[in-house]
Amino acid sequence: MSEQAPVIVLVRPQLGENIGKAARAMLNFGLTEMRLVSPRDGWPNPSAGPAAAGADEVLEGAQVFETLAEAVSDCANVYATTVRKRGVTKPVVTPEQAAREIHAAPGRSAYVFGPERSGLETEDVALARAILTVPINPEFASLNLAQAVILCAYEWSKHVPSNAEGNAGLEQPTLEELLPPAPQEELEGLIGHFERLLEDKNYFWPKTRAAANRLTLRNLLTKPGWNHLEVRTLRGVLSTLENARRPRG
Amino acid sequence: MSEQAPVIVLVRPQLGENIGKAARAMLNFGLTEMRLVSPRDGWPNPSAGPAAAGADEVLEGAQVFETLAEAVSDCANVYATTVRKRGVTKPVVTPEQAAREIHAAPGRSAYVFGPERSGLETEDVALARAILTVPINPEFASLNLAQAVILCAYEWSKHVPSNAEGNAGLEQPTLEELLPPAPQEELEGLIGHFERLLEDKNYFWPKTRAAANRLTLRNLLTKPGWNHLEVRTLRGVLSTLENARRPRG
Repeated sequence: MSEQAPVIVLVRPQLGENIGKAARAMLNFGLTEMRLVSPRDGWPNPSAGPAAAGADEVLEGAQVFETLAEAVSDCANVYATTVRKRGVTKPVVTPEQAAREIHAAPGRSAYVFGPERSGLETEDVALARAILTVPINPEFASLNLAQAVILCAYEWSKHVPSNAEGNAGLEQPTLEELLPPAPQEELEGLIGHFERLLEDKNYFWPKTRAAANRLTLRNLLTKPGWNHLEVRTLRGVLSTLENARRPRG
Repeated sequence: MSEQAPVIVLVRPQLGENIGKAARAMLNFGLTEMRLVSPRDGWPNPSAGPAAAGADEVLEGAQVFETLAEAVSDCANVYATTVRKRGVTKPVVTPEQAAREIHAAPGRSAYVFGPERSGLETEDVALARAILTVPINPEFASLNLAQAVILCAYEWSKHVPSNAEGNAGLEQPTLEELLPPAPQEELEGLIGHFERLLEDKNYFWPKTRAAANRLTLRNLLTKPGWNHLEVRTLRGVLSTLENARRPRG
């Protein structure tokens, strides 16, 4: 049995555009169930569709409720999203912790988001089992609604068991352990050196293939992440080749 | 010595509004260094400021370059963000893997983002050491520029060593292990039951304190995450109190 995906609850959202953006954010990470509590301008809202950028199935399936209590009545794990606060009386979790809990907990879960300007009221937070706060720059905390939604949806998606396997399966880059990869300008110097030499040898011929050949070379030389010493060694090799050619030419 | 934060490079961005939104996304997670490669409408762009919602320091410090190679010339670890692709010739990493690598690697790092509509060109990707792809719903991949930036910035911030400690220090909720927390409607029933009884006893008096008292009660009853059996037991307790009162009344 697969778990039920969490619902996204928007409490008294103001702009239809933001509802649409939230729908788009959700669907990017596979969340499809949106619930609206007393949207200011009613529902449906003609501004939502264009902002959803194709996430129409989320908007079409959105349910409207009068109160948050009704909207989450079938949910066992309700997370109220707020900015960082003092003196809260409930556990405070990060999006990552919430995602882990939601995947581990039986029962339906809900992420609850407040109105754009004001956020959730104390009465709304009182309905939740826990508070979800995104750890953010304390000197500039300015997440909009869709951004808060996308961070929660992204973390939830990351912790879907099948996705976790998929991500782990991605090829990992090897990091140079003793020396960092050389800065890009050293690499550019090396690539330029190669190209100069190869041009002299008519490597980039016929002309119709030249761009593709340069790209192949660039990809090949960028891949290893050579460090400063390795780049220097290679430059030395190229200089040697270059100089050896001149006496003959 | 603290590590240098990565730079965010926007290649040929089209709309000033999106540059502003990217700046806002960055600063939320403590990233301040933005570099622009050939912005379509020049720089500065009057549409950027309003969209930055206060992240002016990022825009004011933004540097402009003609080519991506110049923009990342001092960077040892360059990540090119792209949508999921087949046949790539470089390591592909998630935002989380990139964040871990950036914190572990010596040298400056850069996250590179392409133009809004088209994304990075093959020639841009060729400059990078690795490709960064957000694992996304394959049936609806529709991240906008600022959203891609915020997910990378968020993951980078999560893995700042001091933040990692800070998050781990948040109080963790206790999850009922054997039975899930009761659905919200059962909890509402319990809270309503309490309130009905307490109203009869003039608990919510004086009236000026009633709202605050109800809130205190609601917070107190919401906190434990009681399961279905626990809620039923409590309802039984309340019913007993209620019935015992009636014969006397």
